[in-house]
Amino acid sequence: MLYKNDNLFPILEQHADLKKRLFNGNFGLEKENVRVDENGNLSLTPHPAIFGLKEENPYIKTDFSESQIEMITPVSGSVDEVYTSMENLQNIVSDRIRDEYLWPSSNPPILPAEQDIPIAVYQDPNSASRLYREHLAREYGKKIQLFSGIHYNFSFSDDFLERLHTSMGGEKTLQDFKNQIYLKVAKYFMQNRWFLLYLTGASPVYLPNFLNKTPDNEVSRETSDLALNNGISLRNSHAGYKNKCSLHVDYDSFDGYISSIESWINQGKIDSMRELYNPIRLKNAHTDQSLAGLAKAGVEYIEIRSLDLNPFDPNGITKETLHFIQLLLVTGLLTESTAFDKIQQEQSDQNEERIASNGLTKPDIYVNGTEIPFDQAVEKLLTEMEHVAKLTDTTDFQSIIEAQREISKHPEKTIASQITTTSESFVSFNLEKAKTYLQKSLQNAYKLIGYEDMELSTQIVLKSAVTKGLSIELLDREENFIRLEKRNQVEYIKQATKTARDSYISALIMENKVVTKQILAEHNIEVPQGQNFSDIEIARASFELFADKPIVIKPKSTNFGIGISIFKDGFTQENYEEALKIAFSYDSSVIIETYIPGDEYRFLVIDGKIAGILKRVPANITGDGIRTIAELIDEKNLDPLRGTDHLKPLEIIQKGPEETLMLSMQGFSMSDVPDEGQIVYLRENSNISTGGDSIDVTDLIHPYYQELAIKCAKAVDANLCGVDIIVSRETIANGPYAVIELNFNPAIQIHSFPYQGENRRIGDIILDFLFKETI
Amino acid sequence: MLYKNDNLFPILEQHADLKKRLFNGNFGLEKENVRVDENGNLSLTPHPAIFGLKEENPYIKTDFSESQIEMITPVSGSVDEVYTSMENLQNIVSDRIRDEYLWPSSNPPILPAEQDIPIAVYQDPNSASRLYREHLAREYGKKIQLFSGIHYNFSFSDDFLERLHTSMGGEKTLQDFKNQIYLKVAKYFMQNRWFLLYLTGASPVYLPNFLNKTPDNEVSRETSDLALNNGISLRNSHAGYKNKCSLHVDYDSFDGYISSIESWINQGKIDSMRELYNPIRLKNAHTDQSLAGLAKAGVEYIEIRSLDLNPFDPNGITKETLHFIQLLLVTGLLTESTAFDKIQQEQSDQNEERIASNGLTKPDIYVNGTEIPFDQAVEKLLTEMEHVAKLTDTTDFQSIIEAQREISKHPEKTIASQITTTSESFVSFNLEKAKTYLQKSLQNAYKLIGYEDMELSTQIVLKSAVTKGLSIELLDREENFIRLEKRNQVEYIKQATKTARDSYISALIMENKVVTKQILAEHNIEVPQGQNFSDIEIARASFELFADKPIVIKPKSTNFGIGISIFKDGFTQENYEEALKIAFSYDSSVIIETYIPGDEYRFLVIDGKIAGILKRVPANITGDGIRTIAELIDEKNLDPLRGTDHLKPLEIIQKGPEETLMLSMQGFSMSDVPDEGQIVYLRENSNISTGGDSIDVTDLIHPYYQELAIKCAKAVDANLCGVDIIVSRETIANGPYAVIELNFNPAIQIHSFPYQGENRRIGDIILDFLFKETI
Repeated sequence: MLYKNDNLFPILEQHADLKKRLFNGNFGLEKENVRVDENGNLSLTPHPAIFGLKEENPYIKTDFSESQIEMITPVSGSVDEVYTSMENLQNIVSDRIRDEYLWPSSNPPILPAEQDIPIAVYQDPNSASRLYREHLAREYGKKIQLFSGIHYNFSFSDDFLERLHTSMGGEKTLQDFKNQIYLKVAKYFMQNRWFLLYLTGASPVYLPNFLNKTPDNEVSRETSDLALNNGISLRNSHAGYKNKCSLHVDYDSFDGYISSIESWINQGKIDSMRELYNPIRLKNAHTDQSLAGLAKAGVEYIEIRSLDLNPFDPNGITKETLHFIQLLLVTGLLTESTAFDKIQQEQSDQNEERIASNGLTKPDIYVNGTEIPFDQAVEKLLTEMEHVAKLTDTTDFQSIIEAQREISKHPEKTIASQITTTSESFVSFNLEKAKTYLQKSLQNAYKLIGYEDMELSTQIVLKSAVTKGLSIELLDREENFIRLEKRNQVEYIKQATKTARDSYISALIMENKVVTKQILAEHNIEVPQGQNFSDIEIARASFELFADKPIVIKPKSTNFGIGISIFKDGFTQENYEEALKIAFSYDSSVIIETYIPGDEYRFLVIDGKIAGILKRVPANITGDGIRTIAELIDEKNLDPLRGTDHLKPLEIIQKGPEETLMLSMQGFSMSDVPDEGQIVYLRENSNISTGGDSIDVTDLIHPYYQELAIKCAKAVDANLCGVDIIVSRETIANGPYAVIELNFNPAIQIHSFPYQGENRRIGDIILDFLFKETI
Repeated sequence: MLYKNDNLFPILEQHADLKKRLFNGNFGLEKENVRVDENGNLSLTPHPAIFGLKEENPYIKTDFSESQIEMITPVSGSVDEVYTSMENLQNIVSDRIRDEYLWPSSNPPILPAEQDIPIAVYQDPNSASRLYREHLAREYGKKIQLFSGIHYNFSFSDDFLERLHTSMGGEKTLQDFKNQIYLKVAKYFMQNRWFLLYLTGASPVYLPNFLNKTPDNEVSRETSDLALNNGISLRNSHAGYKNKCSLHVDYDSFDGYISSIESWINQGKIDSMRELYNPIRLKNAHTDQSLAGLAKAGVEYIEIRSLDLNPFDPNGITKETLHFIQLLLVTGLLTESTAFDKIQQEQSDQNEERIASNGLTKPDIYVNGTEIPFDQAVEKLLTEMEHVAKLTDTTDFQSIIEAQREISKHPEKTIASQITTTSESFVSFNLEKAKTYLQKSLQNAYKLIGYEDMELSTQIVLKSAVTKGLSIELLDREENFIRLEKRNQVEYIKQATKTARDSYISALIMENKVVTKQILAEHNIEVPQGQNFSDIEIARASFELFADKPIVIKPKSTNFGIGISIFKDGFTQENYEEALKIAFSYDSSVIIETYIPGDEYRFLVIDGKIAGILKRVPANITGDGIRTIAELIDEKNLDPLRGTDHLKPLEIIQKGPEETLMLSMQGFSMSDVPDEGQIVYLRENSNISTGGDSIDVTDLIHPYYQELAIKCAKAVDANLCGVDIIVSRETIANGPYAVIELNFNPAIQIHSFPYQGENRRIGDIILDFLFKETI
């Protein structure tokens, strides 16, 4: 041992800077869920192609089976962040496997015959990953590989460890120091893991025909599933996924740790370190996974592997548990360590087995070589943890400890007990949860949790980037400036659609309405013929120019139809002058333009192809002959996709002065009851931002207009742009139409989450375009 | 004749819309000047390569000789515009031939032996242009081809002609109508050209050995040049550049006009229409120059070819003359035409010869077959013109007519008389003018006249575009948005440096200081290490982070050094807090950055190469031990390159509160007299916009920093950008340095017109880059 007395409390009390950083750390989660069909059968479909190669996607891979998705969070700086990351992964994966579900239990769903369980497929059929899985299938059988769990990775902050090293005299190298620290923590974890298992074990119920052996205390449930009588975790029990014999390890020194594992390998008990199914592992992400690699590079973090999936949380684990585990590890760091020889390791294994198979009976527990009552053992541990909890006030560890103490006193409050006592069958219990979690994910499909401060468009691109396994960096959150990378191809994106694929001048052309109009007209594209007047006298004198044409007279900068006069079928000099007077009363600049009757469509063109087409319809409600307009608005606003301030893909319909005015112009008030089926518009303008509806018409509109939109984009050499076109009759070619403007920063959420129609997956299309050569 | 009585006054009086448009028209000028060396010898150097192929450049070509530059204005909508266009061409050409001069006389300078006069060289040595010139050299000799002149192209506005056609009944086609109109105008011009020659003839003096024949009234001048005694225009005289015999043309109908010329060609008197050296030609720019082409397409405009170069105007012609000619042509259109048969054409030729050779004697003039005194003939013409002048008030034609009447009464006021009576020799008179005009052009080198509303950077690019013969279109003047074209390659440019060569995201990266800094740092480029604080308490608490480093504490958005504290050699906690307090009093966001001592340099990188490097020096004056600071500022501000509001490449130095404060901080006031050689700074900041000096150091600075700037541009994938670097010692590699920022819209005028150093011709570099494949 590095230190005779390795109680670190005195050191911590002396150094405020250490104390301040004690709970800084890095967190990571890896969660496995098998995919199932709507009846709870293991899915036999391939890993969804949208996730790319499982060899490359760092977030979404497969575990043993092709049907066993593994979600891996990036390294996070806090419990909240890592929990959110897992939540996003859960949402993203759920959204993409639509006809299937993520099985929320550690115990497998209905399995096919052993030989039909698909092993994960890799590009190279002889890859190490594949061969290892084939070895496992032969060695242990495939079924038992479908146990799923959640891994918890943790390291103390570098800053803290460096300071701690220095404060303790700085002997040996920093890496040696770290090795010793993590070994101490791992030992403490091993000694106390029985209690964590009591709290988190969640696999007491399982299906017949899953196991090849029969656990001692197996019972049949009324629902004809099997269960461990008073048990907590089949997965962590002797019948679970374990090495064939107990493999004890030396926790007294890092060298001893390495050589003890080495001897197991040399004896042929395991083929490599990764076959050592320890509840906790010492790891280094920057080496290969070999024992020699770890010995050389030293420990970087620890991985807790014994956690069952908690079916009561969509993420498979609660934030409370995440905090509790951190506190347990910090307690292990600070608390004076005790001996943990072969006998004591066997006793700790027995503790684990007692809890796994009989935990609800609160069995006696070995503590430092002596069997003591469960409650007493719990109290000893929680007291140690309370001592540590007092060192910080950033997390309310005290109440977390209190909650666990409560569960320790009442086994019926454990997750396991709640699972066992439900009257539902194993399959229907878990299927119901899976379906509920899918619905929850879909409701959040439009956003990336924790990134709501960024634009929806950027959130959508980020979700696609996660889906496709790109490296992500937020360069400037406020500016929605991100960097994505795959296989050394780097792409910068601002506001989702500003990329390296468009030239600067293309954007500037689109930004300039005059120049855009000129270029489109030169390409024989119809644009509203019109003129800009800043002098009412000159405008008056230009009467002849417009006579006999359908025209719109409007203030240049108006947005909401104010001050606009439309003459669809001719007008007198008097009409004309009156309209000018009105328009000039709102703006010093007035536009007179040919009037094109029709609806406004947004064509999103990416890489010379149509990505989506929307029709925008002004805010409206449809009457039911019963409710008032105000009530119908309220009901329409219940749509979870409607929000305010662009935080959601659609905006709620207001009941403000503009809406009231628009109603009164039609002879309505908010308290009127429209006829059944009667559509009442609340706005003149069709902007989504004022409650308009977005209707996906990508598959409805005549290809003539699709070609037209593509031609517009080409005219200004734009690769990513929105084309706004007024179309009179969407299913008939050759117009009349008029291209209103091009948009170099088109919103994408309106195509991904329209009011009506399907998600056009614009994020995917953008990334496929940017990483054409790489994805 | 189309109309029995072709007096159009009654029609015009009836139609106000015609009257309003009568003086609308299109104007063009073509001016020839031979290039000479500083002694007045014909230049024997090739046509400058910067002008590109003479076959392609529509503005700058060569005429007969390789040394004879021809400048061609675009079609312009007014006299003012066409005059300005010629002024710009004159300035541009002068600026590019620097060691040579444009000879301002129609009569040639000192010529080499006949065989040494270079004929214009073309890419294809057998091109029609070359072969035609060789034919002329054989047929007429080379010397006489060096007569230079100015051509005046004119057409009435289409709108006017269409309305006139309709108002007159609309018989025949519009084109037939136009043919008849222009023929009528041409006849009138032919009948009255003697007076225009009297006014504009400017070639009475010439060098011995120029002509092969001796004019009847040749006299030697005291300066040993030759002159026509009382003559006005050698070029338009019988000894000038004429067809070998008089070629009369039918002016009564367009068919007759065509067939009369056809018969001359058939008789072998001329080889084609272009060898018909008429004082006025009917032309169409959209056909080949053949007679058949003209016959088929009809007349589009008329070209007046008899005008001598006016050496008293740098443009070779005055605006007054341009207006007078327009009035003459409009008078020709309206006035009832008279017979112009062969005899009358011979009489008009005699009129021309009398004026050319003896104009200062006011010879009798044939008018409608009768010889009458000169003054009477003038009065008849001017009376007709006055009648027309009354139809408009947009130009003060009346005073122009009055001025010409005055000249008609006083031959000594003619251009010719002023040339003849100067005591200077022909060569020194014209050389002095040429040198003066060059100086004038160079003073205007930074701007494009008539485009001063656009940014200087854009004016520079436009001048380069003219130089290189690109087609130019101003898409949006206010936005400095232009379109250039050459051989079907189209390039859009906004604000001179925003082009299709940069991606949108590159510009956005450069716009974002945080992202730029991160990317540069990742490329191992030194950037000021620093942090942004928006909370003074957090800034205070970060003292440790900066202790012992040289730092700058500054408000985030300050521009002029206000609120900045610099600690070059350490600071106390007290200093630090005081500086924070000051900075936060100016801005809610404060930056603390490492301080890099040195000067600020702007590197302009284009296409991965250095285009120019400037050092920016704060506004300053250098003492002379005599004058006060205020006086020295005034003197420095006399530099014609200094102006206000960015209208010139440098800004004048103000004497405002900032300057006074800066002086007082150094213990000076505006009325102090600094020592000789003492440099006194008036500003802390080095911005050119506050009177700073721009020093071109492109050839001085160590290549290390040039490579560094190029590396910065590459890091953000920028093809056109400014890189601002603080460099401590410009001639020593490896720093210390710090890259402050990248600029995606760098000013180019500062490199083209620096305070010290050479013009780096950035406009050329940008266009060479954009049109790499084409130019």
